[in-house]
Amino acid sequence: MARTTGSDGEKTEAAIREAAVNLIARLGYEAMSMRQLAAEVGVQAAALYRYFPTKEDLLFTLMREHMEGLIAAWDTARPASADPVARLSAYVRNHIAFHIERRHATHVSNMELRSLSPERLTQILKQRTAYEKELRAILRDGAEEGVFTVEDTGLTAMALIQMMTGVIVWFRPGERLSITEVTTTYLSMTMRLVGARIDTYGAARPFGRAKDAVAL
Amino acid sequence: MARTTGSDGEKTEAAIREAAVNLIARLGYEAMSMRQLAAEVGVQAAALYRYFPTKEDLLFTLMREHMEGLIAAWDTARPASADPVARLSAYVRNHIAFHIERRHATHVSNMELRSLSPERLTQILKQRTAYEKELRAILRDGAEEGVFTVEDTGLTAMALIQMMTGVIVWFRPGERLSITEVTTTYLSMTMRLVGARIDTYGAARPFGRAKDAVAL
Repeated sequence: MARTTGSDGEKTEAAIREAAVNLIARLGYEAMSMRQLAAEVGVQAAALYRYFPTKEDLLFTLMREHMEGLIAAWDTARPASADPVARLSAYVRNHIAFHIERRHATHVSNMELRSLSPERLTQILKQRTAYEKELRAILRDGAEEGVFTVEDTGLTAMALIQMMTGVIVWFRPGERLSITEVTTTYLSMTMRLVGARIDTYGAARPFGRAKDAVAL
Repeated sequence: MARTTGSDGEKTEAAIREAAVNLIARLGYEAMSMRQLAAEVGVQAAALYRYFPTKEDLLFTLMREHMEGLIAAWDTARPASADPVARLSAYVRNHIAFHIERRHATHVSNMELRSLSPERLTQILKQRTAYEKELRAILRDGAEEGVFTVEDTGLTAMALIQMMTGVIVWFRPGERLSITEVTTTYLSMTMRLVGARIDTYGAARPFGRAKDAVAL
């Protein structure tokens, strides 16, 4: 997302980042040259290096900011409630909304990890772990309260994240389904997958079949 | 998987394919040169071109054979039974087993589609659609028989495939979980996700909580 306010320097940096995400998603990181990127942005290659001294600095910045953005979005979306169903619902909604809006950045973040130096790879993986840990905590709390059926919180968290992030592979705005429809269906699938007991009468009835299920 | 029988030509071709999968998974298709690949296999670059006239021929062959292998594995694994639960169970088992054994080939197939020519991309996408259609048919039959709860067969098929293929991102043989344990947990999650009613007494009880659930 290009910033529309800020100094000229900030605008140029935002334009570089946006063009880089699109170019890397299209060509791949190794195939993209800084010269190509400069041409795309409409600046001299030398100007690029003022913002990003190396090509890898640029890639790392894109990936770090992607994860920082995701974690910040979750911090905002996280409900005050301790209820595992409400928390899981908020996590799913936030995850899908964030990634659908950043399809190219998500591709880059998932596909170009191999091009980071080991130290920087470790930093990105730490951010991912912190984000996944939030989901594992929700699943564990739900299982402990007897609200969820979860065999393995780690495995379930990975399965859910991959299922949700996968939306960007096939979803295109303006086609058969709206973001709201996709999110609603993914919420139903998620709640069934974790065996959520969420109807208002407290009976162990699976989500998606109970007529009296509470709205999420 | 390198062939161990066959003519010298077949052995060389298999060695090229195996080395290419590993190099592309490590470096990316655009970054890999045919010269590097030849060095890895221990042949002259000219020998490589005898088997694969262009680099894209090689990539296309890898992707086409990956999909052919997956479809052939499913043809073998497909149960004679018309029971949606048995068919879904077989599909999950086959999908996870096939991809865990071919982690690098799966990465290449998923990450390098952008480097195929439009005609060849169409061919690979047709193979994928044919394979996914099998899963959609199972889900639709299950929903029609009232055995599954599925809001949208297309969405559910994509969600399941992405969740299952995602195993290769984090699974490493010899770590915390065995392939059997992973598969068992994914089967439980899948059956709950589709709201499968599979206990032997015919009651609408979700899989994974029913003590009397039939073995899959």
